[in-house]
Amino acid sequence: MSVPKSVAAHRQAVVELLTGVLAGKGNITLPLLEALGKALAVDVYAPLSLPPFANSQMDGFAVRSADIPDGGAELRVAAPVPAGAAPAALKPGFAAPIMTGAMIPEGADAVVPIEKATPNTFPGPAAEDAVVELPPVAPGTYVRDSGSDIGKGTLALAAGTRMGPAQLGLLAALGLTTVEVRQPCRVLLVTTGDEVVEPGSELTSGKIFDSNGTLLEASMRQAGLEVVRTGISDDEPAKLLAVLRHHTGPGDSRVDLIVTTGGVSKGAYEVVRQAMADQPVDFLPVAMQPGGPQGLGSFEGVPFLGFPGNPVSCLVSFEMFLRPALSLVLGTPAPRQVLRARLAQQLTSPEGKHQVRRGTLDADGTVRMEGGAGSHLVHSLAKANALVQIPGDVTELAEGDEVEVWML
Amino acid sequence: MSVPKSVAAHRQAVVELLTGVLAGKGNITLPLLEALGKALAVDVYAPLSLPPFANSQMDGFAVRSADIPDGGAELRVAAPVPAGAAPAALKPGFAAPIMTGAMIPEGADAVVPIEKATPNTFPGPAAEDAVVELPPVAPGTYVRDSGSDIGKGTLALAAGTRMGPAQLGLLAALGLTTVEVRQPCRVLLVTTGDEVVEPGSELTSGKIFDSNGTLLEASMRQAGLEVVRTGISDDEPAKLLAVLRHHTGPGDSRVDLIVTTGGVSKGAYEVVRQAMADQPVDFLPVAMQPGGPQGLGSFEGVPFLGFPGNPVSCLVSFEMFLRPALSLVLGTPAPRQVLRARLAQQLTSPEGKHQVRRGTLDADGTVRMEGGAGSHLVHSLAKANALVQIPGDVTELAEGDEVEVWML
Repeated sequence: MSVPKSVAAHRQAVVELLTGVLAGKGNITLPLLEALGKALAVDVYAPLSLPPFANSQMDGFAVRSADIPDGGAELRVAAPVPAGAAPAALKPGFAAPIMTGAMIPEGADAVVPIEKATPNTFPGPAAEDAVVELPPVAPGTYVRDSGSDIGKGTLALAAGTRMGPAQLGLLAALGLTTVEVRQPCRVLLVTTGDEVVEPGSELTSGKIFDSNGTLLEASMRQAGLEVVRTGISDDEPAKLLAVLRHHTGPGDSRVDLIVTTGGVSKGAYEVVRQAMADQPVDFLPVAMQPGGPQGLGSFEGVPFLGFPGNPVSCLVSFEMFLRPALSLVLGTPAPRQVLRARLAQQLTSPEGKHQVRRGTLDADGTVRMEGGAGSHLVHSLAKANALVQIPGDVTELAEGDEVEVWML
Repeated sequence: MSVPKSVAAHRQAVVELLTGVLAGKGNITLPLLEALGKALAVDVYAPLSLPPFANSQMDGFAVRSADIPDGGAELRVAAPVPAGAAPAALKPGFAAPIMTGAMIPEGADAVVPIEKATPNTFPGPAAEDAVVELPPVAPGTYVRDSGSDIGKGTLALAAGTRMGPAQLGLLAALGLTTVEVRQPCRVLLVTTGDEVVEPGSELTSGKIFDSNGTLLEASMRQAGLEVVRTGISDDEPAKLLAVLRHHTGPGDSRVDLIVTTGGVSKGAYEVVRQAMADQPVDFLPVAMQPGGPQGLGSFEGVPFLGFPGNPVSCLVSFEMFLRPALSLVLGTPAPRQVLRARLAQQLTSPEGKHQVRRGTLDADGTVRMEGGAGSHLVHSLAKANALVQIPGDVTELAEGDEVEVWML
């Protein structure tokens, strides 16, 4: 029996596996909104400054500040400057009604808000000889300078940035309509087991419905992977091999990564172990519970991960290994939020194994367990909002002890 | 000038607006994976127990615990029980090799793990008269009882539950292939302003590219809304009215909600205010910065929200009002994670206004500001990972003071 691998060592091995996947991928160009949630593949430099021109931060009067002495001044009212217009230069002794976002006229260097003017309303269009009394104002007041947000030619977003609403909004503000992202990663997801049948089919004695396929496809979709499903593979290695060969040969059906569930343990009928017998794949126990038995290597040159067969083990395997490795190597998805919480109850944990329990973090900062340690408890899992991390050297924790939780 | 509304009062008004939207929506049935991220519309009761039958938690030997006295016993080896099989009853004096997940044979009540057996390997198929020496075992050991995760007929998931990988995995484990969710909510998103042009077009003097459309459509898509875009509406009320009428009349183009950006302030050219003149819409300042000017009401009976025109104001309006109201009323999206953080710098904030600053929460639990308070700073916004909440009664904060942050 092999010495169990640490969680960190196995995660690092998954990172290296994905680094190989990434090396083979090029970039594609997508319309901004289709890139939502994906990572930028290249640095983006600002093709223009933001704001592109000095503009008013307020509805008010654009003035030459030097025109207004300490005691205030009465200025003649120039033609108004609506947002979107290219205004004429402001003549000395004049104040131009200006709207928020409108371009500061040449010559003007400050804005007096309408509330501080007398009268404090804009004159109507017929008021040709209107005047306005304004208090003194420092140069630059309520002016948003050109380039004060970002200067033309400077780095707007670095390669690897995950693009959410704000990042896409910035790219649009810069006038861009498309963005370069990595070619998506295609994953073959195969659930295995003689006992497993498709949801919706008849459940005969000794069988269970496949939840791993749905659970992992959903996880993978959220992580931005393209998922290829094959249906359930039974415990006949030759059939599993045929599926794997179909998706690792040359041509369109070739995938970038293979993930299987089940068949990696030490039982008498371990179909994934048997199918991988001639391939460079390790089946090493990881010092983790659940999710200890893990396969890692490649099948006909395509990177391969073998997760265990219980649904909680599958989720924990994805969250502890594949998801963090994707975040690190591909830039998406966002890493899970890691928090500290106080235990609502005492806990025991096996010595030498990193235990991952499922819990609910409540608003008061305490976390309570959902169900026991068993890896078949998918209903308890569905009630949890967090994974509770109990390191391998911890065997007992009291109520109120602090633990690390990963928010799901 | 009207008295500013509190943030809480305006959010409550948005909740009431959306409650009206929801009342008009029915349910639809989706395949499980298409419901990812959506809220369950009805309670789901378990159509079967999980596990459906008592099964083994280990690879080992299924035994009648009473057959093994304190000193251990030698038992005859019965036919092996692979996962997925319906085994014969276990005869007294026999031990059946059993795999993880396989059905416990009738008569057996415990499992001895293979590691504790002598010999500690399963006999080959030819070993007809094989025996195995086993230590004593308590009844129930390593047996996952039928219904120990969830009993048939009990509540599996409550209406309103957001469906992530674990929830969909549970539904699959229960044999379900579809799920009922609310009809999606269709939002008309109109950006306005004479100064605003589509990204990708020519930028003439005084103009800026529209970032609000991309920013809000991305936010709305992430929140599960269906977004209808109309392009930019200029500052001509008649044109905006025509767009709104097209999407509020009878027929397929009718939407559930209208959101506009810009034209809600107190300037001379406020197109949204003008277009809404005959409609039951309030334009009330909210005591918030940015995002103070807000419109709320209905246009031809369709609920309406008017956001201000700066991109940061748009994002803050969405995050402070529409997103939390959607979470509360429709069940999706998940509320933002709210954390406490220590300020990395001192801050000032205007009295009487709830300020929402953009910041980056670092791993050490401190939050530093990205850019100043200005609502045009979309590049600074794109660097932030959190909204920093500074209540209206706070005007100064020192470095190290604790603040509430909402994780983006």
